[in-house]
Amino acid sequence: VARPLYDDEPFFEEYSTLPRSINGLAAAPEWPTLRELLPSLTGARVVDLGCGFGWFCRWAADEGAAEVLGIDVSERMLGRARAEAPSPRISYERHDLEGLELPADRFDLAYSSLTLHYLADIVPLFATVRRALTPGGSFVFSIEHPIHTAPRRPGFVTDDGGSVTWPLDQYVDEGPRATEWLGAEVTKHHRTTGTYVNELIAAGFRVRAVVDWSPSPEQVRAEPGWAPERARPPFLLVAATAS
Amino acid sequence: VARPLYDDEPFFEEYSTLPRSINGLAAAPEWPTLRELLPSLTGARVVDLGCGFGWFCRWAADEGAAEVLGIDVSERMLGRARAEAPSPRISYERHDLEGLELPADRFDLAYSSLTLHYLADIVPLFATVRRALTPGGSFVFSIEHPIHTAPRRPGFVTDDGGSVTWPLDQYVDEGPRATEWLGAEVTKHHRTTGTYVNELIAAGFRVRAVVDWSPSPEQVRAEPGWAPERARPPFLLVAATAS
Repeated sequence: VARPLYDDEPFFEEYSTLPRSINGLAAAPEWPTLRELLPSLTGARVVDLGCGFGWFCRWAADEGAAEVLGIDVSERMLGRARAEAPSPRISYERHDLEGLELPADRFDLAYSSLTLHYLADIVPLFATVRRALTPGGSFVFSIEHPIHTAPRRPGFVTDDGGSVTWPLDQYVDEGPRATEWLGAEVTKHHRTTGTYVNELIAAGFRVRAVVDWSPSPEQVRAEPGWAPERARPPFLLVAATAS
Repeated sequence: VARPLYDDEPFFEEYSTLPRSINGLAAAPEWPTLRELLPSLTGARVVDLGCGFGWFCRWAADEGAAEVLGIDVSERMLGRARAEAPSPRISYERHDLEGLELPADRFDLAYSSLTLHYLADIVPLFATVRRALTPGGSFVFSIEHPIHTAPRRPGFVTDDGGSVTWPLDQYVDEGPRATEWLGAEVTKHHRTTGTYVNELIAAGFRVRAVVDWSPSPEQVRAEPGWAPERARPPFLLVAATAS
């Protein structure tokens, strides 16, 4: 495993100051919509792929999950996750999601928040998740929206009249995108919405919901700085069932 | 039924000069991909929603469909469809797709090409199609891609360096979009990809494929003018099964 970016001291410190690093799910505006896509967690066995500081793992345990496994590649993030409100029902393991193996027929829910767009190839992970889920189990994830990851120069443009647009290009050209984030170079892997959906189906999932998520008009009223996020969806939320 | 635009003489004449009006499926670059989403047509009963000049209906009959019903709102288009290579296995009926009724459990395939984005509400039509299909029957359609229908001012922009982008805005604001096409004002109805997928699932379909379609690199080499179409997909292709 290459040294993960999140274990780099300055990047980790920067990341730790983000609202969702400090306040967790409550600071993630897409969380209420993502939560609605989740099955009941009472007695469920849950795996969180890219668990970060463990906010979702702790929430799932509070919701009655029997067992929660958080997986992340960053030792620093796992260290903080383990230190926060340890629960006998939560465990954390360090793994790279590329090449991840999981026991078969073992989980009722696989969850992943804003992680899968960092994987060069999602096909092996989708197969691993499908095998690890019980029949009827759920796979619920969010990613940066393909409209967000596609462009050569991602960014909003404001014209003289104050109209905001998101200049889209190379949408159907899948592959790596080098971007800068929190002062570091971060490589994301762009895939179309259709590819995510079709690879889920090919792996043996039944698609349950696809949400092109932007903040609601109410959320924009509360946070006017988010208004441009309605020009194009920042996140794609997907729910699927192991069929 | 309001007088359809396609029955307006100048518009109809303009429309009739388009490559795909003259050469049919062979002139539609998305057709090879759409065709791959179709089930076997041998002995199938087929309905084409927005059949236009009947190119697909004739192709389906040639492929061995037992019975093909073409539906369109334009009497002029149906007149030409009826005049071209009449087959006892093809019939045409004039209906508006809004408020359409079809017999239950009657078709093995419902097909629609570049039509559904003209409907203000797809929910009633999806319910009608679901009821009209036999169990396991297919619904395969193309629409203008939501990325295409979304913007206030749809159009490519070329910067000083020659880079082409598609300035996207108001993606999550669903509703009517007034555009000009062939000298006429045409109202399209923008919906997100997620809405199409989720309404299919709500109507009782299982999603089989979602394709963000742009011309392939090979097609662009043959038709260099299509190069900008790789900046953003012009069409969305969807296949679903009545479950």
